[in-house]
Amino acid sequence: MRAITIAAPGGPEVLQLTEVPDPVVAEGEVLVEVVASAVNRADVLQRQGFYNPPPGASPYPGLECSGRIAALGAGVAGWAVGDEVCALLSGGGYAEKVSIPVGQLLPLPKGIDLVDAAALPEVTSTVWSNVFQTVHLRPGETLLVHGGSSGIGTMAIQLGKQIGATVAVTAGSAEKLEACSALGADILINYRDQDFVDALGDHGADVILDVIGAKYLSRNIDALAVNGRLVIIGMQGGTKAELDIGKLMAKRAAVASTSLRARPLDEKAAIVASVREHVWPLIGNGRVRPVVDRILPLADAAEAHRLMEGSTHIGKILLRV
Amino acid sequence: MRAITIAAPGGPEVLQLTEVPDPVVAEGEVLVEVVASAVNRADVLQRQGFYNPPPGASPYPGLECSGRIAALGAGVAGWAVGDEVCALLSGGGYAEKVSIPVGQLLPLPKGIDLVDAAALPEVTSTVWSNVFQTVHLRPGETLLVHGGSSGIGTMAIQLGKQIGATVAVTAGSAEKLEACSALGADILINYRDQDFVDALGDHGADVILDVIGAKYLSRNIDALAVNGRLVIIGMQGGTKAELDIGKLMAKRAAVASTSLRARPLDEKAAIVASVREHVWPLIGNGRVRPVVDRILPLADAAEAHRLMEGSTHIGKILLRV
Repeated sequence: MRAITIAAPGGPEVLQLTEVPDPVVAEGEVLVEVVASAVNRADVLQRQGFYNPPPGASPYPGLECSGRIAALGAGVAGWAVGDEVCALLSGGGYAEKVSIPVGQLLPLPKGIDLVDAAALPEVTSTVWSNVFQTVHLRPGETLLVHGGSSGIGTMAIQLGKQIGATVAVTAGSAEKLEACSALGADILINYRDQDFVDALGDHGADVILDVIGAKYLSRNIDALAVNGRLVIIGMQGGTKAELDIGKLMAKRAAVASTSLRARPLDEKAAIVASVREHVWPLIGNGRVRPVVDRILPLADAAEAHRLMEGSTHIGKILLRV
Repeated sequence: MRAITIAAPGGPEVLQLTEVPDPVVAEGEVLVEVVASAVNRADVLQRQGFYNPPPGASPYPGLECSGRIAALGAGVAGWAVGDEVCALLSGGGYAEKVSIPVGQLLPLPKGIDLVDAAALPEVTSTVWSNVFQTVHLRPGETLLVHGGSSGIGTMAIQLGKQIGATVAVTAGSAEKLEACSALGADILINYRDQDFVDALGDHGADVILDVIGAKYLSRNIDALAVNGRLVIIGMQGGTKAELDIGKLMAKRAAVASTSLRARPLDEKAAIVASVREHVWPLIGNGRVRPVVDRILPLADAAEAHRLMEGSTHIGKILLRV
């Protein structure tokens, strides 16, 4: 098969479409013929050499895909060859075929195009596991989403609104904030000329979904409401910062941080099952939708990474095989 | 009535038994004739001028008491004059009488002496709300309790064992560790000559109950297991420290911090109700017991504070009225 390989750590140009051996399908896995994959910021880090695949994962980038089941490994039940699916991956989505632990498969949501479905597994699993399973956003609470126009952000806005939260977002342009507003965001903060702590007002945010890390830690805690919960899923602004425990205690607040890729199979399967139970119906009935910025051919993975790094996109950048 | 007042911020000698007006009993409160109170580290901070009572609270120290109901305020149902009770207070326990929001009252557990009952409200509410309600210790997990021989520590050990956790403790002497062992602690760590991260071994602690704060933050995160939760309820080692978000993310871990005194009435009442439901039966059937180091007369509050600050006690120091 062909896959996008990383010739050596470096810029987008190191991503090359290459002939490679087909993946082996182990017990408990299915082989999927990939129709589309999606670009995640973690893929950029992997390309740069900063985020190696976990042991046993495919060496090729790509943390999600959509496609059709081409073969079933031993012990797999409940799925059939030809089924249209999408899936959370530990890597290998930028390829014509990928083998996937069965617990990470999702059926195609009702009414969703097979290509667009590649936009869903990572953002739904990430937002659901963090905002709902880890820090338990509740109806009536305020959710602050940093990077509201990102793939993660566009899903967090929609799921936050579905549960009945007030959703605040930060983004870096009027166009991005307009897109967030169209998805239901209530409080629009341009971080280039507004302080998000001020913009949130007295109550603050009950839950903050953060991708910046160190640079925002202190202000995020300032922005938390009493009993607030900050969950950090990215460290675009560095990894180490001073924590004021006194402020945390005064607010009875919590700081959590997670990642999806490093989780063991059983945790990933539990998250995917919960996404299927709670999020899939909302997509199937049209209340929540994938937000796709554009679709490029797999061979243009380098261009897709340039777009991701340029950060002018809104929603997901997909790669069609 | 007489109460221990704080003449001015300072050493133990500023605690003076003084004639003061009786407390007013507001709607939704009961007046209790105090039989015993207990010393908490927060009382020492209050005496030193570092921890002012929240608005509306009694200016006198004392965050818990036992006694008999002497009068009912308007709107109070379910309690009668003469009932033997213990209670969580926002202050005012070092006194002959105190008025108490009804949601903070607890009946005397079966088989517990009325004086000893003063040892229970703060430690049960603190351990239950933090270890079980905030960070959800589960059966089979490992709980690390810093200061295992403190009032909080002795209750955390017992409740941790009751839920089926492995309990590790730190303390500063062989005698204290022996007391922890007698309460069921499985892993005994003398922090003066052992590193608690090393002593916990590869798995680490799923939950850490910490009273040190800044000084231990980094090592506590090192000690956490994957999916571990650190909850900080004291800052004896300072309030600000560097947080390594990368380590937190790699462990999918969380840092929470809470305090009890500043919570609004409804949150306190919810905690007390949960303690009554979950912890009181364990005390009533003798599986969990108050650990009382010694009982001093109320007039000797200064001496009780000296003992607390000397840190050679094991369990609670009580003041008998």
